[in-house]
Amino acid sequence: MTTADSGVPDGGSPGGPGGGLPGGPGKGSPDGSPAGLPVGGGRGRTLTRRGLLVGLGAAGGAGAMYAAMGALGLAPDRQTRDYTPPRKSDFSLSGRAGATVVILGAGVAGLACAYELGKAGYDCTILEARDRVGGRNLTLRRGDRLPEISGATQEATFGEDVYFNAGPGRIAQWMITLDYCRALGVPIEVFVNENPSAYVYTSGMKAAMRARTARADTYGYISELLAKATNDGALDRRLTAQDKELLLDFLSAFGDIGDRYAYTGGERRGEPAGAPPSLSEVLGYRIGRPVSFGLAYDQAMPMFQPVGGMDAIVTGLVKAVGADRIRTSAPVTRITNRPDGVEVAYKGGSIRADYCVAALPPHILARIPGNLDRRTVDALSTPKPVSTGKIGLEYRTRWWEDDDHIYGGVTETDLDIQHIWYPSYGFHGRSGLVVGYYNTGANAEAYGRLTHAERRRRALAGGAEIHGEKYGRGLLSSVSIAWQRQPYIEGGWVAWPSYEGGFAHLQKPDGRVYFAGDWLTQLIAWQAGSFESARNVVTQLHDRVLKES
Amino acid sequence: MTTADSGVPDGGSPGGPGGGLPGGPGKGSPDGSPAGLPVGGGRGRTLTRRGLLVGLGAAGGAGAMYAAMGALGLAPDRQTRDYTPPRKSDFSLSGRAGATVVILGAGVAGLACAYELGKAGYDCTILEARDRVGGRNLTLRRGDRLPEISGATQEATFGEDVYFNAGPGRIAQWMITLDYCRALGVPIEVFVNENPSAYVYTSGMKAAMRARTARADTYGYISELLAKATNDGALDRRLTAQDKELLLDFLSAFGDIGDRYAYTGGERRGEPAGAPPSLSEVLGYRIGRPVSFGLAYDQAMPMFQPVGGMDAIVTGLVKAVGADRIRTSAPVTRITNRPDGVEVAYKGGSIRADYCVAALPPHILARIPGNLDRRTVDALSTPKPVSTGKIGLEYRTRWWEDDDHIYGGVTETDLDIQHIWYPSYGFHGRSGLVVGYYNTGANAEAYGRLTHAERRRRALAGGAEIHGEKYGRGLLSSVSIAWQRQPYIEGGWVAWPSYEGGFAHLQKPDGRVYFAGDWLTQLIAWQAGSFESARNVVTQLHDRVLKES
Repeated sequence: MTTADSGVPDGGSPGGPGGGLPGGPGKGSPDGSPAGLPVGGGRGRTLTRRGLLVGLGAAGGAGAMYAAMGALGLAPDRQTRDYTPPRKSDFSLSGRAGATVVILGAGVAGLACAYELGKAGYDCTILEARDRVGGRNLTLRRGDRLPEISGATQEATFGEDVYFNAGPGRIAQWMITLDYCRALGVPIEVFVNENPSAYVYTSGMKAAMRARTARADTYGYISELLAKATNDGALDRRLTAQDKELLLDFLSAFGDIGDRYAYTGGERRGEPAGAPPSLSEVLGYRIGRPVSFGLAYDQAMPMFQPVGGMDAIVTGLVKAVGADRIRTSAPVTRITNRPDGVEVAYKGGSIRADYCVAALPPHILARIPGNLDRRTVDALSTPKPVSTGKIGLEYRTRWWEDDDHIYGGVTETDLDIQHIWYPSYGFHGRSGLVVGYYNTGANAEAYGRLTHAERRRRALAGGAEIHGEKYGRGLLSSVSIAWQRQPYIEGGWVAWPSYEGGFAHLQKPDGRVYFAGDWLTQLIAWQAGSFESARNVVTQLHDRVLKES
Repeated sequence: MTTADSGVPDGGSPGGPGGGLPGGPGKGSPDGSPAGLPVGGGRGRTLTRRGLLVGLGAAGGAGAMYAAMGALGLAPDRQTRDYTPPRKSDFSLSGRAGATVVILGAGVAGLACAYELGKAGYDCTILEARDRVGGRNLTLRRGDRLPEISGATQEATFGEDVYFNAGPGRIAQWMITLDYCRALGVPIEVFVNENPSAYVYTSGMKAAMRARTARADTYGYISELLAKATNDGALDRRLTAQDKELLLDFLSAFGDIGDRYAYTGGERRGEPAGAPPSLSEVLGYRIGRPVSFGLAYDQAMPMFQPVGGMDAIVTGLVKAVGADRIRTSAPVTRITNRPDGVEVAYKGGSIRADYCVAALPPHILARIPGNLDRRTVDALSTPKPVSTGKIGLEYRTRWWEDDDHIYGGVTETDLDIQHIWYPSYGFHGRSGLVVGYYNTGANAEAYGRLTHAERRRRALAGGAEIHGEKYGRGLLSSVSIAWQRQPYIEGGWVAWPSYEGGFAHLQKPDGRVYFAGDWLTQLIAWQAGSFESARNVVTQLHDRVLKES
């Protein structure tokens, strides 16, 4: 069941909505051709190189691009807090009280636009094609139905306290998503993204290993090797005598190799004392990516999740915006820019407003008729949706805690399941839900083509390669999602071939129609991107209204 | 305020009760002289080496010893689950129903003994010298009074939801402490033990740095150096061509150095793009220990804490044991072994029982008159108490979250405060409590000699070196503890000069008196050690009762 030829670049980091992508430094090297991102000027060189890198997204999604940026020394900007929400008092000179705005899509970006505009008294209406709000921020609970485009529909039959974050699942502590949690009164708790007691299983291993053991062995040997090279004088042209002393000190602690600079195993392995495998065997683990993903800026522990399910953010936004402003089961059928407003037709009616914010996935938006500029439609058609899927497996007992002492975290594999997530809530509870796969690209497409029963069977077979026979026992229920098969969404996120052209074009409105979504930021596949984009659009729209009023 | 000459071996890992100690590989190398630990036979060589290492404890406490074990390739045993609690049905043949047992000390070891013996119907009475139960498992809340031996008494005036774990604060996921939480119905949550957004500040730095940045720079450069040595052929005698390829692959991911194997900064730094400091400057960070402590078996994330305060474990034990079995403010004045029982005199009375379990700190126990064997008293006098202290600083706002985006975790310094802990509970709440210092050894003694007001002033000065002026603003209240000054405890934990002799002697009873406590295990300073010791004693005592009945 390994997937060396699955088309997914690597199984390195946990990826997907709220996840980044299976990452790893990109293979392409920049050639320096001129390009620039038209948002926030004065960052020419950096953005030029970024522009070239985003091409990786076509194969690997935003995460691969993001990781490659790191490899090339391009630190992403910290997510800015430099944002002033519109206020009612902004209109005090003009006597106006905001404009009317129709927002397309009640995902996080659309809801955030309504929330921010509402602070200044804008009169917003949100049209949502699906029968529920939240978009990809989807938490499934007992009784929830999950139809796919094909018509196949699952129903969740989980126990009362069990939920399944089918979309985003984690938030880094620097992301503005946490600011929204604070503002909306959504309580948060730690999400365990990395756990040395969880497993890692690569094609270079005979069997799955505890991540702790694989990491200890690898850090131990690389410390030994570098200490040896240092002591042998191989780095004398790079290192002063003082450097060498400091380096050896570091390696002693980092590799747990004492002052003889030899790796002989140790307590970090978490296994009974004994000699570790040979250097060659350890290098054969091939764990560079699986044990390094937690070093990434967007994946480092601690991460966070709302208590009780990710959709607590959606619930908080809806409450702040007002549920009466949202029309569900209202797919948009036509968007017409007029000189003095926008007209939006939808199933069951039409609405006219001063402005429109289109916060739908670009590939969906591109298909909606209307009079948007040809360049706009081209731009919307440019990014390619990325397939991704998850399965929630509800077990009768929490055997991963009771027997294996794994409390949350992620098992990394290069099987087609890619990752197993152990739950970061309900510790020591009676039952619990494991995410049995979280995969992307070709793996996700393969699973997506299966019936739910087949997906489950395949997920259980994959998990059994890590956990053995018990993985197939005690299953209470399960639900799987294939995001590319979700109506009106049709993908986990998108990958741009470049951050030039279309990406840049859509940062500005087409007439009175603005565009919002994670797909218009450098934080694709993260809710933080949706919030950031909403802020950008709200700022632009409000500036324009203030100028015109 | 640096403490290069403070006498504490290093400021590496967060240490202390529930914490291990400022660790790091020990400097002593084993000489192989014969010794053995008399518990659990058949592990001669390992235990011999351990026996020699424990001497480190005198300077560095249990944690230093533990870390040194790792450096020498001595993996500690995983904490065994091989334990069968006594059951009432064990007595079905004899018709007996357990014996009477007087337990000295209502700390975790004493309470756990009563809990385990109670399962088989033993009639236990616990004598506790202090006016509250729990021993070092001490959570302070509004209204709690904290007297020191000197007579100086503080009173906590924290806000309603604020608590301060003055003793143990964290639990590793493999520790049996979690099994007790499960059994007692104590809910747990993640304790953030390591956070790359927190700071590290060593004498090698011009100013405190985010741990993320220091780590990224160091991992980047050591990867570059090792890649260079590999590519230059310096390791050709150690590495095959295949090894070299695998190693370079690993380094590319681990150091985020791409396929040119050059470190040029990157997203992991979490700082605006730009060239990183020079190799020499980065080696000068001296962060081997501060960034490696989280790799240790007992310190690795995720760790856990009971919801609402560590003393939830004590509360759970007391509820299971029965509060009526515990006499507080009852310091023991004499212990008399008799052929058919034990007589214990205490302030206010005396009690006779078939057996006694003495679960007091050894240095306290050694001072109690009675007829214990001379070798026993010598053994009890052997381990030396380790000084340790903490201060809880309650702030009006959670500025570390709101402004600095630090959600839990530990700042590592070599200032005399040693560590700052940010709270792992109450995220986004109104106020919060930071542990302003957690220090050991000479630092703890220096703070212990001060008045509380002086400790606070010094803690605020230390914290300001990390966080600047704001650290001194918005303080609502504070409480400090110096464990060596706590009545009837007089130390954070103990350090044995060796695991031979006295340590071995006390594993067995003296007549009808048994000994229990973390100080009789390899998990000194951890509640898990108290539980383990309680299980050992209960098993021995029950076996004896079954044989005699």
